[in-house]
Amino acid sequence: MAHALRLARRGLGTVWPNPAVGCVIVQTGRIVGRGWTQPGGRPHAERIALDQAGPLARGATAYVTLEPCAHHGRTPPCAEGLVQAGIARVVSAMTDPDPRVAGRGHGILRAAGIAVTEDLRQAEARELQAGFLSRVLTGRPFVTLKLATSFDGRIATAGGESQWITGPQARLHVHAMRMIHDAVMVGGGTARADRPSLNVRGLTTTRQPLRVVLSSQPLPDMPAEGPAHGPLMRLDGPPEVALQALAAQGVTRVFCEGGGMLAASLLRAGLVDQVMGYTAGVVLGGDGRAAAGSLRLERLADAPRFRLVETRRLGGDLFHRWLRA
Amino acid sequence: MAHALRLARRGLGTVWPNPAVGCVIVQTGRIVGRGWTQPGGRPHAERIALDQAGPLARGATAYVTLEPCAHHGRTPPCAEGLVQAGIARVVSAMTDPDPRVAGRGHGILRAAGIAVTEDLRQAEARELQAGFLSRVLTGRPFVTLKLATSFDGRIATAGGESQWITGPQARLHVHAMRMIHDAVMVGGGTARADRPSLNVRGLTTTRQPLRVVLSSQPLPDMPAEGPAHGPLMRLDGPPEVALQALAAQGVTRVFCEGGGMLAASLLRAGLVDQVMGYTAGVVLGGDGRAAAGSLRLERLADAPRFRLVETRRLGGDLFHRWLRA
Repeated sequence: MAHALRLARRGLGTVWPNPAVGCVIVQTGRIVGRGWTQPGGRPHAERIALDQAGPLARGATAYVTLEPCAHHGRTPPCAEGLVQAGIARVVSAMTDPDPRVAGRGHGILRAAGIAVTEDLRQAEARELQAGFLSRVLTGRPFVTLKLATSFDGRIATAGGESQWITGPQARLHVHAMRMIHDAVMVGGGTARADRPSLNVRGLTTTRQPLRVVLSSQPLPDMPAEGPAHGPLMRLDGPPEVALQALAAQGVTRVFCEGGGMLAASLLRAGLVDQVMGYTAGVVLGGDGRAAAGSLRLERLADAPRFRLVETRRLGGDLFHRWLRA
Repeated sequence: MAHALRLARRGLGTVWPNPAVGCVIVQTGRIVGRGWTQPGGRPHAERIALDQAGPLARGATAYVTLEPCAHHGRTPPCAEGLVQAGIARVVSAMTDPDPRVAGRGHGILRAAGIAVTEDLRQAEARELQAGFLSRVLTGRPFVTLKLATSFDGRIATAGGESQWITGPQARLHVHAMRMIHDAVMVGGGTARADRPSLNVRGLTTTRQPLRVVLSSQPLPDMPAEGPAHGPLMRLDGPPEVALQALAAQGVTRVFCEGGGMLAASLLRAGLVDQVMGYTAGVVLGGDGRAAAGSLRLERLADAPRFRLVETRRLGGDLFHRWLRA
């Protein structure tokens, strides 16, 4: 299952509106098929692993990071595929929260006499599936807020200079993070001031993320959609509504890169699920531009709280990742 | 020498105006004497180790983290003590920059026929001796700036609430850091607003740090000097001058705990040697109180830069330590 989870991770950012799933088929101690959800969401992980295994799937065990699908969409359901291939046992990491599946995948398998073990490494699977779970269960995508700041939480000098506070390794890491999100989002002020490219560079990707600008005003000239840039979308209105609109289009994971006004409005509305901090060894002072706008907090107890889940050094900078507490 | 360096560390914060030194005496593969500079700076590490070794010092090797002293002060010089004890070999980590020593300690040893090896683990010894080196070579103490902030670099909410942003483990760590500095310093605004105790609590210490308030105005009521509180001192004028005055009194290591105005003036004047950051998983917003006051920076290239040397998790908070780049 650890292997299947690693395979699943490869799909993050490119498989929406579908979940990123991994599947490993084991026949008498040997891996005979491996698959992960392909860009665009199809084929599913199970289909690829079964095709790879061929006749060796008969009597084998399939490890899947999410309950196999049970509904007829553009392709026959994976649960039926596993039955037809003669799989003897299925181990799955979590039940699919999609109401069209929700246990019916496991049901089809059991009805066909397949032994089913559920919830192996469920916590890891749920973290991997955070975007899909958020879209299905809350109607909005999972939101990561990026804060690349000086030591004292500033994103630009008093004079407005902001490039580059963090070093090349931190910037490459940001591109890797854009790659595993479906959409990259900025506020209108940032779009007009910085003309950010909001694409993945320096890394090979099969699909550029959707570019989303939250703004009530017209956008500046930005590159057209193409091999190097994802579709460009302007959304208006409160962030809750914009995020619901994105989820309705299938977006499961949004990477918000500022500016401070948008960060503050997401934080105020309780819409930030994860914070990724990149801290540079530089101090810009209280007159520098703040990473987050006003929150109008009186009491500390009212402040949005996060728990530390990861820290690492990226060149001269410090990376730290926090999840909603 | 690694052992001698660990012993030396025990003296940090309590031995000023003297350097914190460690000494280990080894006789045919066995440790026969260990010493470190005692609170107040005397006895010296070598004296204690020699007394412990007694007659076993004859023909032994002494490892010292700093060149033995050569000048007659309140006690005879350690170099002579090592000669009289019959030590055969001395390994030292660095030359004493004090002009009264500066190679003369090693000279006394060599003149007496003792084999001397210099500069073993010199880099570690110099880092340990950063305060003493700063006082002797630049005429001011080594300055550590503490920043305990929210994720976005804030030290209080817009409403002014600041206790507690960081958790109990981070706070205990702060007390340990106060313990290894000679003095704890705050600005007048912080002294009047927070009435900080500026002492070591929750840890056993032989000497409370000097309390220094940089202010042109009278101080508020603060606890008198006693077993739980170090001497209280008010200094006026620019921070350069105040730090020179502290060095003139023998202070080698200063721990600055804010507020934002004092932090900014130290940073602007290039007086910060080390930054210790405690970052809590909370966001307070751009209207919260900033950790550092205005630096009036136009260009990023002019910002004070630091290099990351240590990170660790302290309960729910992130600790990160940076040295002047």
